[in-house]
Amino acid sequence: MVEKKKSFLGIQHLAIQEINSLLDFAQEIKERTNSGKKVNASLRGKRIVNLFLEPSTRTRIAFEIAAKSLDADVISIAEKSSSLTKGESLRDTAKNIQALGADAIVLRHSSPGSAQYLSNIISVPVINAGDGAHEHPSQALLDLFTLREKLGNLNGKKITILGDILFSRVARSNIWGLLKMGARVTLSGPSTLVPKLFQDFGLHVTYDLNTAIEGADAIMLLRIQHERQTQTHFPSLEEYSKMFGLKNGGCKPSKNCLILHPGPINRGVEIDSTLADNDQSLILSQVTNGVNVRMAILHRYCS
Amino acid sequence: MVEKKKSFLGIQHLAIQEINSLLDFAQEIKERTNSGKKVNASLRGKRIVNLFLEPSTRTRIAFEIAAKSLDADVISIAEKSSSLTKGESLRDTAKNIQALGADAIVLRHSSPGSAQYLSNIISVPVINAGDGAHEHPSQALLDLFTLREKLGNLNGKKITILGDILFSRVARSNIWGLLKMGARVTLSGPSTLVPKLFQDFGLHVTYDLNTAIEGADAIMLLRIQHERQTQTHFPSLEEYSKMFGLKNGGCKPSKNCLILHPGPINRGVEIDSTLADNDQSLILSQVTNGVNVRMAILHRYCS
Amino acid sequence: MVEKKKSFLGIQHLAIQEINSLLDFAQEIKERTNSGKKVNASLRGKRIVNLFLEPSTRTRIAFEIAAKSLDADVISIAEKSSSLTKGESLRDTAKNIQALGADAIVLRHSSPGSAQYLSNIISVPVINAGDGAHEHPSQALLDLFTLREKLGNLNGKKITILGDILFSRVARSNIWGLLKMGARVTLSGPSTLVPKLFQDFGLHVTYDLNTAIEGADAIMLLRIQHERQTQTHFPSLEEYSKMFGLKNGGCKPSKNCLILHPGPINRGVEIDSTLADNDQSLILSQVTNGVNVRMAILHRYCS
Repeated sequence: MVEKKKSFLGIQHLAIQEINSLLDFAQEIKERTNSGKKVNASLRGKRIVNLFLEPSTRTRIAFEIAAKSLDADVISIAEKSSSLTKGESLRDTAKNIQALGADAIVLRHSSPGSAQYLSNIISVPVINAGDGAHEHPSQALLDLFTLREKLGNLNGKKITILGDILFSRVARSNIWGLLKMGARVTLSGPSTLVPKLFQDFGLHVTYDLNTAIEGADAIMLLRIQHERQTQTHFPSLEEYSKMFGLKNGGCKPSKNCLILHPGPINRGVEIDSTLADNDQSLILSQVTNGVNVRMAILHRYCS
Repeated sequence: MVEKKKSFLGIQHLAIQEINSLLDFAQEIKERTNSGKKVNASLRGKRIVNLFLEPSTRTRIAFEIAAKSLDADVISIAEKSSSLTKGESLRDTAKNIQALGADAIVLRHSSPGSAQYLSNIISVPVINAGDGAHEHPSQALLDLFTLREKLGNLNGKKITILGDILFSRVARSNIWGLLKMGARVTLSGPSTLVPKLFQDFGLHVTYDLNTAIEGADAIMLLRIQHERQTQTHFPSLEEYSKMFGLKNGGCKPSKNCLILHPGPINRGVEIDSTLADNDQSLILSQVTNGVNVRMAILHRYCS
Repeated sequence: MVEKKKSFLGIQHLAIQEINSLLDFAQEIKERTNSGKKVNASLRGKRIVNLFLEPSTRTRIAFEIAAKSLDADVISIAEKSSSLTKGESLRDTAKNIQALGADAIVLRHSSPGSAQYLSNIISVPVINAGDGAHEHPSQALLDLFTLREKLGNLNGKKITILGDILFSRVARSNIWGLLKMGARVTLSGPSTLVPKLFQDFGLHVTYDLNTAIEGADAIMLLRIQHERQTQTHFPSLEEYSKMFGLKNGGCKPSKNCLILHPGPINRGVEIDSTLADNDQSLILSQVTNGVNVRMAILHRYCS
């Protein structure tokens, strides 16, 4: 019997050695690409199915480009045109996709745990491209990659995550990753979105923006997830922006402090345009690095 | 003048020799694939356009995978993003697709006869991927393939089709195919969905589930086609399930009786989960075989 | 620093030498294709992103086929499944697509000037596939190609553009192109849709259909753009058809007069079916030529 291949589900249960190994491999891929060399076509003849059941531009396309760059055949399924509209369960859809000959499924789904769930019932690897408010591990890896590229070793670095922590899979995955890398992690945002109990995990929680950004090596901004909130957790976007938005006037990060954001940005809410587009912002580097990181993930888990 | 290529429109007018030849070829493809050999790239440089104007997961993807496995370029068009939203007729859309250089059109459409209609007005082959309640010939071929693989020669075998016969293109195509193969075909389901007049075509019709499944070599379940019914033809899904749903308790098929279903399954309606997922169920084998059968069809009609 | 690549934005600012060169190259591609020769794979390893934010069948597919024929990787993004639904701006979407490693963006957008705008903020070439009521330059090039193929040199030829000039990007692009080629351009249609002031650009404007088509070498029909009109500019479609629709009965073009239409046709409105489908109609030739012209454009601007 063929051994079941491993899935890529989350950062929480990923060993630090595995994280570093993936980052090193992504670095190698980036260098090869930048020097105009073709990366080894390790997925030639493989069928990667992108099953994206929530809207996404950059993650879906990054995975598509990554898979094609390794010479895989990519098949994309979006909810609107699939049998899911006839009431088929995710389980049956996945089993069917496997029966059709898929060699891996890249899953974006609104339910926390959906990637783990799928990995238990199908035998091909599942790559978690975001499962509800639970994890978004490829995003965290690209964030770690981007930080490491600029800061070197993350041990002891102060990294502040700012915004809607409660509903953010990006925050969850990054918190696990940063702690494993030895970073000092500070969380900040409205108290309704940043639970105090995160302190029990060795994180620093503050509701004062000045304290949060003072001495920070990098600030990771989060998107206000309108679509994942069933009720408002702060008075208004304007209020949020006034209290916790990064801007040039008033409370602003030092010139050496790096700024990350997973996108899409709500300009004028989490961050002003001048800061989003200046030199300390790594927002577009994150996007570029995301392709290399996903190539590393697909190569490691699907080839 | 170049001879017009033949289209693949339905099982009704397909000679038994042609059916057997397609099944044999699909078998050959399956064996090559299973032994890790690459299938001859007979559609290299060909452009196959998937024109799917109804929702579909498995059929669309099976055709896409089949075409790519033969090295074709596949272009997918779904209704929502096409000029059909500007009121263009199917005829003009198809003529345009042909003018764009398509070498074949795979059509899924809600109108019975639409594939035949297109084949009359364009010169490239049309592959019927389901036309309303009329035919779904590639589905029937994969069902025949799956039955033949398990039962050998179908001559004299008792095959029961159970459910919503009236609205089912899958039933229509399979009835033609099974009769050509010499099978004894029994139809069963609510009397409102299983017209008595099918007896005139040499089929056995019964409204008693016990009679229907007794001694059956295989039962082909059909999906309750909510979306194709303009009125309800039975009191409720619960009622349907009680009368005609396959389940372990009460009236159930023998252990040797094979179970097929074209998917997507309404679990708990046509069939209980325990039966759907046990060894006598061929539901996922059908899906896998569907790729091989469609490769055979595309190779035969489009290369 | 790498020199910024040129974008393909409109006919207005394109030199006549460049137009002729593109048409000659498209002719060469067509001849190679017709004689069964493979065209040079000049976009191998390039990523072309089709960003189509308005419905389109033929333009989108023509660009997709053209890009694939040059061996490019094509990634398609339609508005419904993109982050634009989370409120991201076109600017940020484009910057992200570039950061993902796109080598060119083919843009269809409802805002006039959107392609020019993008080309100012990203460094990879932008190919305008239609920007609101402004320009549709690849359509004009294929129209010029089709006319040139049948009429030879367009210098001094009478070309009549008939219909909804005011809202038509196709008309705008063709007017610039035809004038550069030395054609005599006549505009006709309801006075509400054909502004008198076009005369200032050296065009002939008439509201009498007989005058418009008398002696014309070709008539370019335009689609009535229901979706781009916020109010009705003529009493009814029936009225329009009676006054300006081309038909066999009554006022009709001579047998030598060529008929073009960018599609999709409103049959029975701008043109009767008998005329749309007869020998003097070049409507489907335009579609076929569109692939060759777009191959020329992509090769020239993106390779």
